[in-house]
Amino acid sequence: MAACIRIAIDSMGGDFGLRTTLPAVLNSLDLYVHLHIVFVGDEQAISTSLADAGYSLSALPSRLTVHHASQVVTMDDKPTIALRKKSDSSMRIALDLLNAGEVDAVVSAGNTGALMAAGWYVLKTLPGIDRPAICTSMPLLEGCGYMLDLGANVDSSASQLHQFAIMGSALCQAVDGVSSPRVALLNIGSEAIKGNEQVKQAAKLLAADTGLNYQGFVEADVILNGNYDVLVCDGFVGNVALKACEGTSHHIAHLLKQELSQGWLAKLSAFFVLPLLKRFSKKLRAQQYNGASFLGLKGVVVKSHGNSSVESFSRAIEQALFEAEHNMIEVLEKQLAVVVD
Amino acid sequence: MAACIRIAIDSMGGDFGLRTTLPAVLNSLDLYVHLHIVFVGDEQAISTSLADAGYSLSALPSRLTVHHASQVVTMDDKPTIALRKKSDSSMRIALDLLNAGEVDAVVSAGNTGALMAAGWYVLKTLPGIDRPAICTSMPLLEGCGYMLDLGANVDSSASQLHQFAIMGSALCQAVDGVSSPRVALLNIGSEAIKGNEQVKQAAKLLAADTGLNYQGFVEADVILNGNYDVLVCDGFVGNVALKACEGTSHHIAHLLKQELSQGWLAKLSAFFVLPLLKRFSKKLRAQQYNGASFLGLKGVVVKSHGNSSVESFSRAIEQALFEAEHNMIEVLEKQLAVVVD
Repeated sequence: MAACIRIAIDSMGGDFGLRTTLPAVLNSLDLYVHLHIVFVGDEQAISTSLADAGYSLSALPSRLTVHHASQVVTMDDKPTIALRKKSDSSMRIALDLLNAGEVDAVVSAGNTGALMAAGWYVLKTLPGIDRPAICTSMPLLEGCGYMLDLGANVDSSASQLHQFAIMGSALCQAVDGVSSPRVALLNIGSEAIKGNEQVKQAAKLLAADTGLNYQGFVEADVILNGNYDVLVCDGFVGNVALKACEGTSHHIAHLLKQELSQGWLAKLSAFFVLPLLKRFSKKLRAQQYNGASFLGLKGVVVKSHGNSSVESFSRAIEQALFEAEHNMIEVLEKQLAVVVD
Repeated sequence: MAACIRIAIDSMGGDFGLRTTLPAVLNSLDLYVHLHIVFVGDEQAISTSLADAGYSLSALPSRLTVHHASQVVTMDDKPTIALRKKSDSSMRIALDLLNAGEVDAVVSAGNTGALMAAGWYVLKTLPGIDRPAICTSMPLLEGCGYMLDLGANVDSSASQLHQFAIMGSALCQAVDGVSSPRVALLNIGSEAIKGNEQVKQAAKLLAADTGLNYQGFVEADVILNGNYDVLVCDGFVGNVALKACEGTSHHIAHLLKQELSQGWLAKLSAFFVLPLLKRFSKKLRAQQYNGASFLGLKGVVVKSHGNSSVESFSRAIEQALFEAEHNMIEVLEKQLAVVVD
C-alpha cells in the first residue's frame, strides 16, 4: 500500500474559494485512499460549506482535517502586502505547515504573485537555485511536455535557464518516470548563431551538463507538437508564448463558430461539428486544467488557475500528490548536488 | 493620375526565385498602372523565364526593366558573407538602386538576415533609429494591426521599443490613413508593476510621447483580437509570439482533421466542414501572405516569405507600393524629428 501523502489546501484561494476547493478535495479523497488533506481556511465558512455537503466539523470525512486561518489573500493583494500583513492567511498557513514538515505539499488557486512570494519567503529555494520557476505541462500532439518558466522570472540569465532545465528534467523523471527527458531551449531560430546572449550561453551550459539530455533549440511554432519533454525559456518569453497559444485557440474557436452560423450549409455543418469542437476544445484546454508547479522551492507547491473549476483544482491536487509521492524534491536535490559540486 | 512608383525586385531571392517573382511582377503591373518595375537578376535566366511567359527581353512588357546581376544570395548564406562577397547579387543591386534614388522601394523574398544586413549597410537608418525592425500586419478579429519587432532585434532597450512604436505608428498613419493609431506594448500582465525593466521603462517613454496614442499593456492572449493598431515588443518576444500563434493554428487544423476522420459521424461532418475550414484557414494564414516591412531604414524595403507563393509575393509588392506612394519614410522622418529634437 502506498505511503500516506498529506497535502495542505489553501481552501479560500482563487475566484471561487470553497465552492471549488471543497468538492475537489472530497473527490480527491475518494479517488486516492492514501491521500490526507489539511484544509486550511476560515473554520466558520468551511463548517457551513461542509454542512451543505452533508458533513459536520465534528464528524469529518476520514483523512480530512480542518486548520483555521483568520485571513484570506485576495486576488488583488499585492505580493508584498500579502507577505507582510497576512501571516494568518490560509495561503500562508498552508506554506508554514509544509515548512514545518506537517504536510508533504501545498495546493492553492490563490493570487500567483502572493503565492510565489510567500512560498519563496517561507520555504526558501533549494541549493543551486536562484529563483523558483513556474512549470506546467503542455498538451503535445503525442503526450505532454513540460514548459518553464512561465512568468515567475523576467530577464532570466543563462545560469537560470540552466537551472530551469535541471528542474524540469527532475520533475519529468520523478513524476513521469522518463529516465532521460529530452530538454530543448526555446529560441527564434535553430542555428547556433540565433537568439539573444542568454539563450546562446544557456545552450552551451545545457550541452555541457552530462546530467541533461539536451536536444538543442526549438522555435515557438512547435511548442504544441515538438519532440521535447522539457522546454526551457525565460519567464517573460514563456508567458507570452503560452498566452499566444491560448489566445490563438480561443480566436480560432470564435472564428469557427462565426463561420458555422453563416448560411444554411454552415448551420447544418454546425449540427455535426459542435460535438467534435467541444471534444477538441477540451483537449486544447487541457493545459489550463493542469496545475502549475512552483519548482525550485524546498517543498512541493502547486498552483491551480484562479478561476479553477472543481475538475481543474482536482488535477492540481493530483499533480501535488504525484510530485510528493515520487519524491520530486529529492530527485531534484540530487541533480542539483552534481551541478553545485 | 497617381505619380509613377518604381520598385526594384530581387528576382532571384526566395525558395522559388523567378518562378514566383516573375508572375507576381506581371500581375502587379497589370493591376497598378502607375507601377514601374526594375527586375534585378541573372539576365539569361530572366530571359528564359520571360520567354516561357511569352515575352522577350527585346520587347518587354511596358513599365518593366531588367537589370542584370551576376550573383545570387542563397537562403543559407550567412549575412556577413552575403554582405562582403556578394556585392553583385540581385538583392544588393536592388538596394543600391534604392539608395541611388533610381527606385522608390525594394521587394525581396530572399534570406532575411542578409537582406537586413545589406539594407542596413547600404541604406543606413533614419536619424533617431538605432536598428531597423521587422513589422507585419496581423489579422485581427476586426481589421488588422501592425506588430513589431518580429526578430530583427533581441534584448531591445526601452528606447528601442519607443522607436518601434514611432515607426509602427508612422506606417499605420501613412499606409492606412489612421490619424492617431492606438499603440500598445506587449507585456505579461496589464498592471504597471508587471514585466521586465525594458518594458516598464518603455511604457513611461510611450506615455510621455505626445506624438503617440499610447494605450497601455496588452497580453499575448489578445494578439489576434486586441484593440490596437500597433503592437510593440522586443524582437525575440515578437518572433516567439508570432510563431506560437502560427504553430497553434497549424496544430488545431491538424487536430480537427484528425477528429474529422474518426467515426462515421465525423466523416460525414468533414464533408460539410472542409470548405469552411479552408476558408477559415486562409483567413488565418493572411498574415503569412503579407510582406514584412523593414522599418527604420532610409528607404522602403519589404520582405516576402522565403517560400512565397505568387499571391503572397504580389502582396509584398503591393505593400511596398503603398508605403512608397504614401511617403511612409517622410511621415516617419517627421515624427522622428520631433523626438530627436
